[in-house]
Amino acid sequence: MTVRLLVDGRADAAVSALDRGLGYGDGLFESIRMIGTTAPLWSRHMQRLGESCTRLHLPMPDADQLWGEALQVSRGMPQAVIRITLTRGLGERGYAPPPTARPTRIVAAFAPPPMHRQPLRLRLCDIRLAEQPALAGMKHLNRLEQVLARAEWNDPSIAEGVLCDGHDRVISATMANLFACVDGQWLTPSLDRCGVAGVARAEVLARCPWITVGELSLAALRGASEVFLSSSVRGIAPVQSFDGHDCRPGDVTRQLQQHWLGLGFSMELA
Amino acid sequence: MTVRLLVDGRADAAVSALDRGLGYGDGLFESIRMIGTTAPLWSRHMQRLGESCTRLHLPMPDADQLWGEALQVSRGMPQAVIRITLTRGLGERGYAPPPTARPTRIVAAFAPPPMHRQPLRLRLCDIRLAEQPALAGMKHLNRLEQVLARAEWNDPSIAEGVLCDGHDRVISATMANLFACVDGQWLTPSLDRCGVAGVARAEVLARCPWITVGELSLAALRGASEVFLSSSVRGIAPVQSFDGHDCRPGDVTRQLQQHWLGLGFSMELA
Repeated sequence: MTVRLLVDGRADAAVSALDRGLGYGDGLFESIRMIGTTAPLWSRHMQRLGESCTRLHLPMPDADQLWGEALQVSRGMPQAVIRITLTRGLGERGYAPPPTARPTRIVAAFAPPPMHRQPLRLRLCDIRLAEQPALAGMKHLNRLEQVLARAEWNDPSIAEGVLCDGHDRVISATMANLFACVDGQWLTPSLDRCGVAGVARAEVLARCPWITVGELSLAALRGASEVFLSSSVRGIAPVQSFDGHDCRPGDVTRQLQQHWLGLGFSMELA
Repeated sequence: MTVRLLVDGRADAAVSALDRGLGYGDGLFESIRMIGTTAPLWSRHMQRLGESCTRLHLPMPDADQLWGEALQVSRGMPQAVIRITLTRGLGERGYAPPPTARPTRIVAAFAPPPMHRQPLRLRLCDIRLAEQPALAGMKHLNRLEQVLARAEWNDPSIAEGVLCDGHDRVISATMANLFACVDGQWLTPSLDRCGVAGVARAEVLARCPWITVGELSLAALRGASEVFLSSSVRGIAPVQSFDGHDCRPGDVTRQLQQHWLGLGFSMELA
């Protein structure tokens, strides 16, 4: 794995073993798709990072500095995924946050993962997401639920897993948000109790204000006529089946894929 | 902050910025009280670490090697707290765990925190712990709930905060387990949905098999006659009040403090 990265602007690739990001998962991250020297959803990423910093009482880093570092680590890469990680930095032992945090800032460039070449097959994950309103919506560093969920299957023909809460309400996929058309009505789950409010989801909702944000039951998803996933890394991915129930990509999915191309994302489309 | 530490046995103090412990909180830790060259609860720490490794599909490190490293970093310290952190090591970007994990192992020695000099005053935390049976009981690296809970107050006269789940069931303090005598019956909360199953708690339960592990409501705690906290770092700490409701240290608390001294913990007692 060759990765170019900067830690607090330095190309030395290492973090203190006493960093609170490592000790407690005390921090945030963003995964940002770059196309050459552009990142079409950059401003949405910065908006989410700023809002999450406010919620975790972290100082928001300078967005221009982050942009400069993103360009630096992705230089020469026609396509890249930038991961920005922001932690509360060093602290004494113990959960109490230091009165004045000096965050650690990591900016790394990765080659993009392979894009989906056909509509996705999804499975239902066994693990249920815990409900924690104080953390819901944020892309924070406490991601063991997603790690355990993604470890549930190895079949490469299954692209993603659907995550529900403890009341069989659908929340998302393991690394993407989910939209479904049920009885002619488009829905995406509300994320005020669990889940990550994706930047691509925000773009879809801004483009399609007629989509309802609300409750999507597992039973309703099994009867959905059209389903797609949204991801800042992979864009709009149509779904062909969920847990053995077929659905088919339709007009809304195709129009959003075209919108994604129009934003400047030149990724292949499933 | 001067801390002696070893990362995979090397005294170089740094961890890859791509470590999954930092990226996702994908790992575990133990906080172990050392008295000179002994750690009276060592075998319980190793037992918990081994059980948690099994649950997270991590290889358990060699306990003799960990012990040697604990001795090495605490050399010359009459009292120390050892933190062992074990992560899933490097991985490709993405939640999927690598098929064969090569864990990162961090062993660090800290000066112990000040011991409690008098029975504790507790407050009720606003945040509620989320219920996640797949992670409950483990001392994993996803600790944002505890960070947010501990950030709720600054009053140094309040030593600890009580954490409940979403149904007003008491679970623990922010960094200790809790025992209460309600209507003459001793109780400690069950930790199968949330909370950390402390090593000191296990020692108390082994010593006092008549303590019930079960449900402890917030209302019941407010009416408790005797309450103490257990912690591998701070031992048995009597409680004098919770949220304005007084209680008083009694025979069970005092006997357990004596038991702690008998184990070899020479800490001061509140």
